[in-house]
Amino acid sequence: MTRAAAIEPAIGDLTSRLAGFAGAPCSAPESVRAVARLSALDWVAVGLAGREEPVARILRDLAAEEGGTEQSSLFAAPRKAPARMAALVNGATSHALDYDDTHFAHIGHPSVAVFPAALAVAEAERASLPRMLEAALVGMELSIRVGLWLGRSHYQAGFHQTATAGAFGAAAAAARLMRLETAQTALCLGLVATRAAGLKAQFGTMGKPYHAGMAAAAGVEAAQLVRAGFIANPDALEGPFGFAATHHGAADAGAALEGLGTVWQFETVSHKFHACCHGLHAALEALRGLDVRPDTLARVVVTTHPRWMSVCNQPEPTTGLGAKFSYSAAVALHLLGHDTARLESYSDTHCADPRLIALRDLVEVVPDDTLRETEARIALHHRGGRIETAQHDLDAPLPLDAREARVAEKAKGLIGADRTEAVRALLRSDAAASELGDLIRG
Amino acid sequence: MTRAAAIEPAIGDLTSRLAGFAGAPCSAPESVRAVARLSALDWVAVGLAGREEPVARILRDLAAEEGGTEQSSLFAAPRKAPARMAALVNGATSHALDYDDTHFAHIGHPSVAVFPAALAVAEAERASLPRMLEAALVGMELSIRVGLWLGRSHYQAGFHQTATAGAFGAAAAAARLMRLETAQTALCLGLVATRAAGLKAQFGTMGKPYHAGMAAAAGVEAAQLVRAGFIANPDALEGPFGFAATHHGAADAGAALEGLGTVWQFETVSHKFHACCHGLHAALEALRGLDVRPDTLARVVVTTHPRWMSVCNQPEPTTGLGAKFSYSAAVALHLLGHDTARLESYSDTHCADPRLIALRDLVEVVPDDTLRETEARIALHHRGGRIETAQHDLDAPLPLDAREARVAEKAKGLIGADRTEAVRALLRSDAAASELGDLIRG
Repeated sequence: MTRAAAIEPAIGDLTSRLAGFAGAPCSAPESVRAVARLSALDWVAVGLAGREEPVARILRDLAAEEGGTEQSSLFAAPRKAPARMAALVNGATSHALDYDDTHFAHIGHPSVAVFPAALAVAEAERASLPRMLEAALVGMELSIRVGLWLGRSHYQAGFHQTATAGAFGAAAAAARLMRLETAQTALCLGLVATRAAGLKAQFGTMGKPYHAGMAAAAGVEAAQLVRAGFIANPDALEGPFGFAATHHGAADAGAALEGLGTVWQFETVSHKFHACCHGLHAALEALRGLDVRPDTLARVVVTTHPRWMSVCNQPEPTTGLGAKFSYSAAVALHLLGHDTARLESYSDTHCADPRLIALRDLVEVVPDDTLRETEARIALHHRGGRIETAQHDLDAPLPLDAREARVAEKAKGLIGADRTEAVRALLRSDAAASELGDLIRG
Repeated sequence: MTRAAAIEPAIGDLTSRLAGFAGAPCSAPESVRAVARLSALDWVAVGLAGREEPVARILRDLAAEEGGTEQSSLFAAPRKAPARMAALVNGATSHALDYDDTHFAHIGHPSVAVFPAALAVAEAERASLPRMLEAALVGMELSIRVGLWLGRSHYQAGFHQTATAGAFGAAAAAARLMRLETAQTALCLGLVATRAAGLKAQFGTMGKPYHAGMAAAAGVEAAQLVRAGFIANPDALEGPFGFAATHHGAADAGAALEGLGTVWQFETVSHKFHACCHGLHAALEALRGLDVRPDTLARVVVTTHPRWMSVCNQPEPTTGLGAKFSYSAAVALHLLGHDTARLESYSDTHCADPRLIALRDLVEVVPDDTLRETEARIALHHRGGRIETAQHDLDAPLPLDAREARVAEKAKGLIGADRTEAVRALLRSDAAASELGDLIRG
């Protein structure tokens, strides 16, 4: 510890506090830990569901080509890989469908950057699942805090917080699982500051899911190197030429540190319950609250924030991918009883179904800038004049038991009821993290 | 190629031109290729000389722990590693002593970011040494061009061009060795734009040499992924939210593209001929031109640019490290006949030598802001009144044969005459790149 301790005086307050938080006993109440378990289940489900996406296949093939020590499990690969590589592959794989959780405080995807690092290191270190979950929770919280510190200016300048803030969270989770000292964890954060990267210019390409893997892998490698004696500048977040100064960071330490250790920003993470563009979710949630009788419908009016009009308002999509960006098609899928949480619901076949086309053509989409971006209204106009209306705001907190039911329902649609229940049981057990690894491999 | 070609219209002119250059027949004249061979020899010498530095050991141990397919050689390790890992380890190892070449047009170290990628991929692809050298030359030229495009604003903001511009050069070298199409090379450059990173905040720590490895490894991985079908945004250098926009780049495409393919910026790369702080080099070079008779000396006056006064003017160093930052000690070492190109000349023992202390105390250092940063004057005042003076500017071009002699002399001091001659002969041969790999391993 001597060398790391000698550097301590140079550490800024933010890094010092974050490093302390990363290693301290975790104060999270059961309600927060329950959300972390939900995110773990959700992460496993979207990761397995994404296994055949091209980016997942390409990275899995790279891992197979490199081979190496079998430390950690990959989604849908029989052979384990070195921890760093497992983090890379699993990050990209679990973000491939863009169906993982989102935190809107900083606008980032906490799970896909941090769980891959936490599971990979936990398997390599033969840690238990409760330790893995706690490290992931601490890492995800830290990633959100770093994201708040970087602020909107960082995101607006063009950085993908999943990649940048996420790397710090991954490093914190890895360092915690390796039981590094606080001064060493500060070195990890400093080292990651020189590697965290990821541009919004990659949105719409395989580069976006790759970012999650980059963040996870950078966190794992930083912790491995620091454990082996690597010395980095621990003041590389806040200091001169540091991450905030160079990356358009607001450097809002107040926002980052407020309530750290007692308030859990992570608790308000948002799970995606529909396998389509986020802009459609509020309308689909509103629709869920209505008693649907498609055969009597005359007209459906969706009212939404204007920003979504250019994003996800394809009026007559003919492909499954198009349907993911179409109010009319997504609403029609729901009205016909297709589960909008399932990937296979968004199919070319369904788009060509005359019943879907008929319902789709009843849908009218109206912009309204008095709504928030997270809000939508829906009105079902029945023949004979009856009108049913509902409204939903994605920011409205969902009670924990409802969240649990929804995430489990989504997971069952993606990976089946048996595997969902197996993962849920495992996440509540004292099993080794490697048991979760076994489960994601096949 | 269909998928990549479909993206081509979105590529900006800069990326398109750079990608075309990376894959086109290389027009470099023999005089430029000779400098590339010099840099290759220099790179091998400083890489082998750096093998016991802590950062080199830590990264070599990581490679040993990960294991994996034996594709590419590491400095001083019996076992090969996957190409990406070899690039990481060799980049960090060869920059560990900070004794590698520098290009002052953009202020970066071209060799340590690009040769590790080129050799690793050449070995994995079973390419010949001439192809490896040509790919490295093209990659280094491209890294300097990207560095010019990013400009001084990028460097001043806090980015280490070796890490950032270097990653683009490494990707270009790797893509060329994999014989990727121009459109694929553009995807490699676009992908690297989302990964290139490295902060000057790490200067003075192991993070600095690690940057060279990061750049090399990012280039290798980008090319591997694109070859396997990875789609990135090829407009991620110049486009909205692209690398220049996000990383304080001047985006000076004129500077980057002027004479591309006919003018070789790389030719003016600067080799380091003294194993000490760059601020001492002009004075030591001036001293070389004088007839040294230390026993008659009464006084030595070194005149230098004022910026160096706070960098490398330790008057009475007692350690070898201190001597590397001391005009008086470095001058005294030379006067006593120690080779200032050799690492072992800068020793605690020499610092304690009464003859060195006596000579050291004759040295006076005078700042003069009419000198350029690359200039120094030296005046040897002998007893009896004779004064010898000399002046040197590091920017003055050295004839090729003189450069060859100096680099060879340096290499012999670092790795011995036999190995130096073996490397030189190999670099002029048609041998497989793996033969150079064999040579650096042990």
